[in-house]
Formats: sequence, C-alpha cells, structure tokens
Amino acid sequence: MHADSPCPVARSADLLGDRWALLVIRDAFDGVTRFGDFQRSLGAARNILSDRLRRLVEAGILRLQPASDGSAYQEYVLTAAGLELFPLLVALRQWGERHRFGAGEAHSQLIESSTRRPLPYMQPRGRDGEPLPASATRVRKLKDGSGSS
Amino acid sequence: MHADSPCPVARSADLLGDRWALLVIRDAFDGVTRFGDFQRSLGAARNILSDRLRRLVEAGILRLQPASDGSAYQEYVLTAAGLELFPLLVALRQWGERHRFGAGEAHSQLIESSTRRPLPYMQPRGRDGEPLPASATRVRKLKDGSGSS
Repeated sequence: MHADSPCPVARSADLLGDRWALLVIRDAFDGVTRFGDFQRSLGAARNILSDRLRRLVEAGILRLQPASDGSAYQEYVLTAAGLELFPLLVALRQWGERHRFGAGEAHSQLIESSTRRPLPYMQPRGRDGEPLPASATRVRKLKDGSGSS
Repeated sequence: MHADSPCPVARSADLLGDRWALLVIRDAFDGVTRFGDFQRSLGAARNILSDRLRRLVEAGILRLQPASDGSAYQEYVLTAAGLELFPLLVALRQWGERHRFGAGEAHSQLIESSTRRPLPYMQPRGRDGEPLPASATRVRKLKDGSGSS
C-alpha cells in the first residue's frame, strides 16, 4: 500500500506493520525454524501463519533451507537482511518493558550472553555519540513533491 | 490478543504491529497534530484513522489538547511514552533505507539538526559500548511456564 512511498518508515511499515509478522520474526530470532513450532509458539491459524511466512520469504527476511537434521522438513531461517531487524526487535522490546508492564510485573529479558545482564537501553545517537532526542532531528523530504515524508 | 504475554515484544507488537498506527506515530513525530492533516498525509479512511487515533490515546502514546492557536480544534500530540518510540521509528527507517529501496533510489532522510547530516546507524550495544549482534544475546524466559518468550 505504501510500497512506493519515498519514506523508508512507510515502506518498512507496509511490510512489518503487522503483529503476526513481528511475532514470526521474534520467534526466528529465538531459533524457531519449523512451521509447526511457529504454530505452537504463536497460536496462529494455519492460513495466517502460511501467509506471513510466505510474505517474509518474498521480502527476503526469511529463507527456506533443508532441515539441519537431514529430515524432509524445510526450515525457515533469517537472512542477512532479516538479522538486521535486531534493532527493531530491541526497540519493540525495550519500549514494551517500559510502557506495557505494570510495576513489578515480570517479563522475559533479553540478556547479553557474555555478562548475563540485560542489554543497555538502545537509542539513536548523534555524530558525537550522545543520545539524540527526536526534537534534535528533522526529516528532509524529497523535493519532487511526492507527498508524505 | 497478546496483551497479557510475558514477552515485551508481543505486548508492543499487539499495539504497534499495525501499519496505520505506525504511520500515525511517524506523522506525529513530524509535527502533524490535526485529524484532517493526518487524513491528508496518510490517505486513510476516516473510520480507520479515528480508530487508530483513539487506540493510541487509550494506550497513552498520544494525548488530546486544545489547539495551540486558540481555535476550537483539538490537537493530538505525543506523550512522554510516545516520544520514547523514537528508537522504534529510527529502526524502521534505517532498515527500510537499507532493504526497501533500490540502489540510487531516493528517499527522505532523517537528519541531525545541528550537523544537517543523516543520523548514524543505530544498533544495540553491550555493556562495553560495542555493537552487539543478536547471536551474542539470548532471551531469559519466565520460569512460570507461561509459554512464549
């Protein structure tokens, strides 16, 4: 729908602005590879899950490969472009931790393997390495009058 | 649907895994405040836009305030929690720039106001300040057997 927008946020949102797609990607980062395992984890209807997996393969985020155990299964694994969604997943997680849980309500944690401690808060930084609030940025739109940012 | 998941990604995705919601938030960061201006920017049907604005107000991402020009309009503005979605918007934008545009295809840019240069690439970092790939992290799930991560 916004696949031809000059705005990178719109093009990403067109593909990733879907809760099932985001949860499939989350599970792929967690090491889930098989249709049945996605289905069990997500509780998604078979047709919805099929559709999202297909779209993510078409978009180059997942690829299909023969099962690592030599069985007849196919496995879905993240491509290099899919692995670059890690910042998006961390942003969703960290915002959720701050704003979608009550005080003291427990949640899963993303930890750094080497230190076994939660990841530091990720935020945009300026050229000087300091955290940059949105108010210190602006969007430079295209000059061709093609509309939204 | 995943509003009671122990996974922060799932709770965020439940609210933000929606392309219209993401585009409304993008526009709010761009300074759009009025219903008619959101509608013109997004080309969304009136009922879809109403629904998304209402959900984002209920979720504490936007709030309504009297128009700054003293007119009878109401304005939608980002709350503090809404402003903390800036990392998510930057993650969507930077992934889109890398993977949803052809080589040489022009797109809008998010620039640092002080230097007029595009923001550096944002990525999760470890406790030592170095970029941390997903492979160097793991999810510590809750022990209560409540299912998905």
